[in-house]
Formats: sequence, structure tokens, C-alpha cells
Amino acid sequence: MRAVDIISKKRDGTTLTTEEIDFLIAGYTSAEIPDYQMAAWAMAVVLRGMDRRETTDLALAMARSGAMLDLHDIAPITVDKHSTGGVGDKTTLVLAPLLAAVGLPIAKMSGRGLGFSGGTIDKLESIPGLRTELSTEEFRRAVREIGLVVAAQTTELAPADKQLYALRDVTATVESIPLIAASVMSKKLAAGADCIVLDVKCGSGAFMHTLEQARQLAQTMVSIGQRAGRRCSAVISSMGQPLGRAVGNALEVREVVATLQGKGPPDLVELCLTLGVQLALMARDNPLSPVQSIHDDAEARSLLEQALTNGAAWNKFRQMIANQGGDLAVLDSLDGQDSSFGLPRAPIVVPLNAQQTGYVTAINTYILGLILNELGGGRKRKGDPIDSSVGLVMHARLGDRLEPGSLLLDIHAASIEDAERVTSRLLAAYTVDNEPVTPPPLIFDIIKKAD
Amino acid sequence: MRAVDIISKKRDGTTLTTEEIDFLIAGYTSAEIPDYQMAAWAMAVVLRGMDRRETTDLALAMARSGAMLDLHDIAPITVDKHSTGGVGDKTTLVLAPLLAAVGLPIAKMSGRGLGFSGGTIDKLESIPGLRTELSTEEFRRAVREIGLVVAAQTTELAPADKQLYALRDVTATVESIPLIAASVMSKKLAAGADCIVLDVKCGSGAFMHTLEQARQLAQTMVSIGQRAGRRCSAVISSMGQPLGRAVGNALEVREVVATLQGKGPPDLVELCLTLGVQLALMARDNPLSPVQSIHDDAEARSLLEQALTNGAAWNKFRQMIANQGGDLAVLDSLDGQDSSFGLPRAPIVVPLNAQQTGYVTAINTYILGLILNELGGGRKRKGDPIDSSVGLVMHARLGDRLEPGSLLLDIHAASIEDAERVTSRLLAAYTVDNEPVTPPPLIFDIIKKAD
Repeated sequence: MRAVDIISKKRDGTTLTTEEIDFLIAGYTSAEIPDYQMAAWAMAVVLRGMDRRETTDLALAMARSGAMLDLHDIAPITVDKHSTGGVGDKTTLVLAPLLAAVGLPIAKMSGRGLGFSGGTIDKLESIPGLRTELSTEEFRRAVREIGLVVAAQTTELAPADKQLYALRDVTATVESIPLIAASVMSKKLAAGADCIVLDVKCGSGAFMHTLEQARQLAQTMVSIGQRAGRRCSAVISSMGQPLGRAVGNALEVREVVATLQGKGPPDLVELCLTLGVQLALMARDNPLSPVQSIHDDAEARSLLEQALTNGAAWNKFRQMIANQGGDLAVLDSLDGQDSSFGLPRAPIVVPLNAQQTGYVTAINTYILGLILNELGGGRKRKGDPIDSSVGLVMHARLGDRLEPGSLLLDIHAASIEDAERVTSRLLAAYTVDNEPVTPPPLIFDIIKKAD
Repeated sequence: MRAVDIISKKRDGTTLTTEEIDFLIAGYTSAEIPDYQMAAWAMAVVLRGMDRRETTDLALAMARSGAMLDLHDIAPITVDKHSTGGVGDKTTLVLAPLLAAVGLPIAKMSGRGLGFSGGTIDKLESIPGLRTELSTEEFRRAVREIGLVVAAQTTELAPADKQLYALRDVTATVESIPLIAASVMSKKLAAGADCIVLDVKCGSGAFMHTLEQARQLAQTMVSIGQRAGRRCSAVISSMGQPLGRAVGNALEVREVVATLQGKGPPDLVELCLTLGVQLALMARDNPLSPVQSIHDDAEARSLLEQALTNGAAWNKFRQMIANQGGDLAVLDSLDGQDSSFGLPRAPIVVPLNAQQTGYVTAINTYILGLILNELGGGRKRKGDPIDSSVGLVMHARLGDRLEPGSLLLDIHAASIEDAERVTSRLLAAYTVDNEPVTPPPLIFDIIKKAD
């Protein structure tokens, strides 16, 4: 087998065999196949595509390029969740303790923010003392003892994906549904969960701008998960505006705490329940499952709602924070009054008001993500330091009627100058029309079975 | 300017600017742009194409990556010829002295054979003593003194093309009309001729199998030449069977000598006259041209025919051989009787006869080229040694009627075993049908102006 022949097959639009894909990834990982051959192959994939079997083979080959986590000695069934990334997306920090609270162990590896898109690890690290870089032993112990851990992704998972992603980044081969899907799923498969729910974001603040693209990505990822023998489904949710009201790391942790205390914004609560119901239903069929008594969506939803309102989820979250070294006193001081002495807080809060009359018909959420970066709350490049305190708190939402002077949002910034520098672009991110509009649904679709 | 942005433009099917193409080639030559980015770009070009302006820019950028030959201090007008490669293609060795004989200086850099396709330099080197590796000074002196030189290509011409070609070879990005055309033309532009005729081969023994492909390549190359300010035209000629009768280095030199002595096979003579007429017409318009007296195709043809029959071309050939150190006694001893003592001669000649009745409707000329390799007369890899003596002499041609026992060809081999090893595949290279067929034309088309 020669790499050049495999590249030419893909160039000509031919489907590659499992052996050919394994050969490519094994050869690339061992440095026998050079970057320039993988780059040519990746470009051929971008322009020629891959079918579902090839895409699954690629995800599995990359997953197997490193350690494959197996937690079955600790828990009979574990669940996992992945978001394709957005602005104000703090879902994991609500959903993970909620699932653990109903008995579903969740061992989650999360990422950091990059570009316009935020990352769960950055949010968590705004809690003083909290550690996200855990050893394998600490990670496993957390699952065993409290059924819940959210840690930074260790480099050992799917090293081939990391290598290929770095190459794609500099060869204009990122934009490919099969390559994106295989990249995401290689890490999910290596992370070992039995049930995986994918939150595929769609809209101006997501990587997928159209419902058609989002559906393709969701279908492809669900197909990989199911072909690889996992339970897997996807929820396509709106990123046409930030999720919840808070955008920015410490601001989002405050919103998470409020949500776990039963006072969350309706869209965030609804998305967490929707994703949770999917996982509960997938986990139900396992004979050792703690949720095997539930019969349908309604029962699953009711079980989760209960855990959110009776303090069980909040309690799990506190266990997790304590277990990873976070300062519980800081969290408890929040207690819904937002009077924390310990969470980072921006020195300046500047309200931004509407200047015209009309209805909010669109919010360029991508721009909001970039502005968070500019305020210091995100990263342009890997490794950039971030300021956890800064961000935006949204007041006007899609469909709202504005008058001149209506509050659009609050800018939490390090200085007046920082806030002023972004004002005009923030105003321009809102589209205001004369005609009222119906805001888009929060949930566009749920994919339970790949087509 | 960033390479990754240029790659993504081409990936999305956008036309690149002259500056972008210059940036890529300059960056690649200076090693600032790595192989993996060029490989991704090349694959995007294979699948997205390039327009004529881009292709010309690429050829010029690669030509300018090294020395640009300029012979105007020696000759007011020089001519050049390029073949896309075939089997039994000894055209250059007849055409070059023929042009020099009518006063058109030709300073030709030629290649060696590789794969199924032969190379002029290998053919020339079957003449004892002859040197093809000339210094720049020797090359220029030959043009000045006898108006004729055929030398191995020096590495200084179009180094970016050499670098990119080596990369394309291992990344499955060879098969692209714009990349092939730019590669050929970069070397032709760097070699400095004012008038260039391209012999684009078409058929089973050529890289272009269909007339449509050949026409596309011819149009693209003529377009590059003309846009770059040269006179340039292309002849599309048949490689549905070997050109002339001889296939193999020393055998072909014998055929060249016979042709220059007025006893050549009709197809070889016709192709040389056709190509020569194109060059004479292109060269005519220069006020310093030695052929400015000719008015039309017929006059050009008659001038060339005369030089072929009156010994002028043969005399030029002898001058060239002597000038490059070849043994003239060896050549003169041939004298049409093929009784040379000095040209390499295979120890074994095995006739191969037809086994059936019918008409020759196809000859797989690619297979004949591979078999020449296998007999030792060609190369699988660059640098392999070759045996000049071996080869094939064709008797049956397309359209001929065969009976069992009709002579198909003679195998000139190093041993009986070598000859026997290729017999069945040689027989299989002939397609014999019951119905008579009209053989294809030798000249399919002449492209004087890019569309």
C-alpha cells in the first residue's frame, strides 16, 4: 500500500477502504507518511467528501491512535455531551451535575475557548482554586466517588486528531463536514462514554450558519457514534443569539449557579433538559442503568426537572467544585444575590442602550464572541491569557421591541476605554426592523438515527 | 499575504491574482512556504483548475525562479520544439538539424526517458563519444558557430518547477492540465527561444489518451507561450502507434540517419515537415529572420524538403555530432546500409509473427514502451542505466492486413530469454479485427492561436 495511491483514489472521488484509512492514520502518527501527503489527501477529502463508513473509519483510526478510556470497571454506563461551540454556551456546567444527580455518571473532557467560541474549561477556571488539569487517577477517582468530573482534555486522547487538526489549520482544509465530524467523534470515542449527546449549534454565533449544514454535521456525527457501537443522538440548537444572558467566563458561572438553584434563563434550562432527556433515554436500556424505570420523554424530563429544583443538581455541582479544589465559600456567597466576593468581577459596567425604535430581528452573535475576545475574555491564539471577569450581559433578545433608550446589554470591561472601543460594533451587531418577527425556535431538530 | 488564505481561495474555486501566484512560488523556492501547504494548494488546483491567466502566471513565476536564458546576443531569432513524450519519438533529432540547415538557430534542452516514454538525450548518447552535458559556454558557442545544439537540461532552468514536480509526483497531483502545461512551458520560457512549436502526442502511447485532452493541453500551452510574449503553436499528432518503425535508442538513431539521408519512414518525415513549417512561419516575421522570404506553408515546406533531400540537414547533424564529441566514423559507416560497426547492436533479433487473419485496428503503444523498458532500453526510475542496443522494429502498422505468419515486428534483445519473456505481451498489444479500418491521421490538429 502506498500513500500516493490512496491520495489519488480520493482525488478521483473513489471510496477508500477501512485498511487504506487505517494505513494513512497509522503512517501519519508514526511519521512514515509526511505532512505533505496528508495535506494533499485532506484537500482531496474537502473537495471530494467521504461517505459515512469512511468517516467512521477515520474517527475510529484517530481514536485508536492513543489511549482509549474505559470506565466500565467504575460505572456500568457513562454518558457524555459535546457542543460544537458557541457564544455564552455554559450548558455543560449545568447539564453535567444534573445528569450525575439522577445517577448517570459523566466523565467529561472539555476544551478551552478559541476565536469567537468559548470553552467550558475557561469558565470553570474562573472559580478560585479550581483545577481542571487532572491526572488519570484523579479523573477516575472523581467518577467513582461522585459520578462527575469536568477536566481539561489530556493530550493522550486521539493524538492523530491533534496532529491532523494542526495540519488542516494551515492548509485550508478545516471546512469539511466529514473531517470536522471525525475530529469531534475521535475524541468522544476515545473518551469512552456509552451514551453521547451532541449539541450542534446553528446560527450566526456557531461554526454552522445554516440549518442544512448543521443537520449534515449532526447526521454525520450520529452516524459515526452509532456505527462505532455507541448510543448517540444530536440536538440542533439555535446560536442566533447567545444562550442565556451572560457572555464571559465568570459572568457565565454566575448564571450556571443561578440555573442550578432553579433561577436560570428559560432557554438555558430548556436546552439542558432537552439534552438531558436524550441521554436519559439512551442510558435507560442498559440493565444496570440507574434510570431504567423511566418510560418516555415526559418521565425523563420530569426526573431532571425535579433534580434541578430540589437542589440535587446544585449539590452535585458543589461536590464537583470541592473535589477539584475550587473554593466553595465563593460559590455559596453567590446564593442568587450575585454578591460574590470571590468570583472575578469587572471594574466597569457600562449599559448600552438602543438608539432607534423597532424589533430585534437578528443579533450577529459571532461579533459578540469576537468582542468578548477583544475585551480580554477570550483568545486569538492558543495559550493567550484571559481575563475571566469581562463580558456582556444581554437584555434585548430576538423579537424584542425596542425604543430609543431601551437597554440592549451591559458591557463588563476592564476600563471605560475598553468598553467605548467596542460600543459602535456592538450596536451594529443588532438588526432592528419595523415589522415584528417571531424569534427562531431554540431547538431546531433532534437526530436520533442517522439517515 | 498568507499561504493558507491563497490555498483557501483556490479550494473555493476563486481565481488567484498574479501577486498571489508569485508569492506562492517565491515562498516555495525560498522554503518559507512548506511542502504541505504547496501540496494542499496543488490538490486544490487539480480539482478546481486554473484559468489561462493564472496558468501563464504560474509558468512565468516558475521560469523566473532560476536563470532565464537569452541568446539574442548570438542570434536574432531562435526556435525551439517540445514533445509531450511518446514511443519511438525521434523527431527532435531530425527536426533540429533540418531547422538549422535552413538558417533557424535551435538551442534545445532535452530530457531522458522515464516510464514508457523515451527521451532524446538517451537516443543521442547511443552514439559513441557524444556528450550531452554541456557547460553554458559550450552550449552558447554551439549556437553561435553551427546554429545547433541538443543538450541535457541543466538544473538551473526553472528550479521551482523541478521542486514542485517532485512534490506533485508523491501527492497524486500530477494529473492536471494547467499544472502540466505550466511545468512544460516554464522550462521552454526559461530556455529563451523566440518561437516554440509544441508536439502534443495523443493516443495509447502518449500521456494524453483522448483528442479532447490533447487539445486542452495544446490550447493551454499555446496560450501560455503567446501570453508570455513568444510565438507559439502546437501540432497534435498521433501516438496510436510508434512514430516511424524503430523503438529503442540506437535503433532510432539509425532511423534518424536514414531520414536525414532522404530515406525516412513517411510518418516521421511528415511530422518533422509539419513541425518545421510551423516554426518557419512563426520565425518568418522577424526582420532579421533568415526565412523571411517565404510566403506560405507550401514555400516553407518546400524549403525544408529541399534541405532534407540535398544533404544540408544531414550535414548539420554531422556538424552537431562532431561538435559534441560524437564519433563521425560510426555515423558515416551507417550510410543507409545499416552495417555500423560502432553503434550499439543487440546480439539477438527475434522476429514476431502474427497468428491470425485480419486487420490491425489498434496497437497498445504504452505496452510497447513498457516492454522496451523491460528489455533494458528504458528506465523505471531516474538514474537507472540503460542498454542502448535493444528495442523493437515495427513492421505491421495500423490498418495493415495480417495473415498467420505475417511479420509484426523484430525484437532486438540482449538474450533469447529476454525476447521470449515479452512475446505474449507484444502479441496482446495488437488488436486484430475482421473488418478493415482506416488508420487514424498522423496530424489531428494544428493550434496556431489559443481559444
